[in-house]
Amino acid sequence: MRSESQRGLTIVYTGEGKGKTTAALGLVLRAWGRNFRICVIQFLKSETGRWGEVEAARKIEVEWHILGQGFTREDDDQRVNLELAHQAWRFAQQKISSNSFDLIILDEFTYPLHYGWLDTGAVLEWLENQKPPPLHLVITGRSAPPALIKAADLVTEMKKIKHPFDQGIKGQPGIDF
Amino acid sequence: MRSESQRGLTIVYTGEGKGKTTAALGLVLRAWGRNFRICVIQFLKSETGRWGEVEAARKIEVEWHILGQGFTREDDDQRVNLELAHQAWRFAQQKISSNSFDLIILDEFTYPLHYGWLDTGAVLEWLENQKPPPLHLVITGRSAPPALIKAADLVTEMKKIKHPFDQGIKGQPGIDF
Repeated sequence: MRSESQRGLTIVYTGEGKGKTTAALGLVLRAWGRNFRICVIQFLKSETGRWGEVEAARKIEVEWHILGQGFTREDDDQRVNLELAHQAWRFAQQKISSNSFDLIILDEFTYPLHYGWLDTGAVLEWLENQKPPPLHLVITGRSAPPALIKAADLVTEMKKIKHPFDQGIKGQPGIDF
Repeated sequence: MRSESQRGLTIVYTGEGKGKTTAALGLVLRAWGRNFRICVIQFLKSETGRWGEVEAARKIEVEWHILGQGFTREDDDQRVNLELAHQAWRFAQQKISSNSFDLIILDEFTYPLHYGWLDTGAVLEWLENQKPPPLHLVITGRSAPPALIKAADLVTEMKKIKHPFDQGIKGQPGIDF
């Protein structure tokens, strides 16, 4: 458990390289080692199902929510994405303001911001006013909006130097998902 | 457990930014979710003791070794560092060639390579010949030598965009260690 004097950080893992969600998972493990109350919210449904981490979360009893089922890449369905993004954000807002967690991961949350399904300014203003000060918040995903980077305490860009997919090596269970 | 047909990746997390060891911990969690046999070898003793992750590893029964006690920054004690680095590498070699693990993390292993306490060419040649093909190997730390980057399958540079220490925010338990 955390002491209330601790400073909750807003952490952003962004960039094109691999390791963003993976680093967030590392924070989950580290925080779990200290008995933090942890909640992970996946904003995009992953094609791989994320079996390794979802199963691990189940085993260590970390709360894990997979949202974003139904997001589409079709341009004519932007209203659907807008509504789904707002539903997911309302869900996240409840978790954030519940005071029930020490660490919340908003996995791939940069995408609804980047695509404009959510208004970045409104989201940041809400966080500024409503996030409990001791809560650590981690946001992952490519293309983090500049305003999010400005508002965050810690930002790391995962830069791709070499990627096994480029060499024709498929995603590996336990490593990629 | 893994099938033998899987391709063991050599993964390097390097760069000045935060998230290298953390991403390796994320791989530990994901792989543990799939019942991989995991070993973590810390090549430098951390000042923070890494309490969160060491405690988590104990709780999920991941093998964890802290080596590198006694490394010094004094220039006149390079012989000590050389000997300690070779001891640690021999230990890692035994774990790697034991066929007892599916995932091995060599945490902060770039430093003995970068400082020349170990010969990078000799280390890579040994890995090329002796690492069991299905074993996933993860190496973290700044200043990864170019030959290591060349030999690896996946390399991500953690690039520092913003660091809370720069703003006078101290390391936070459960997040930083």
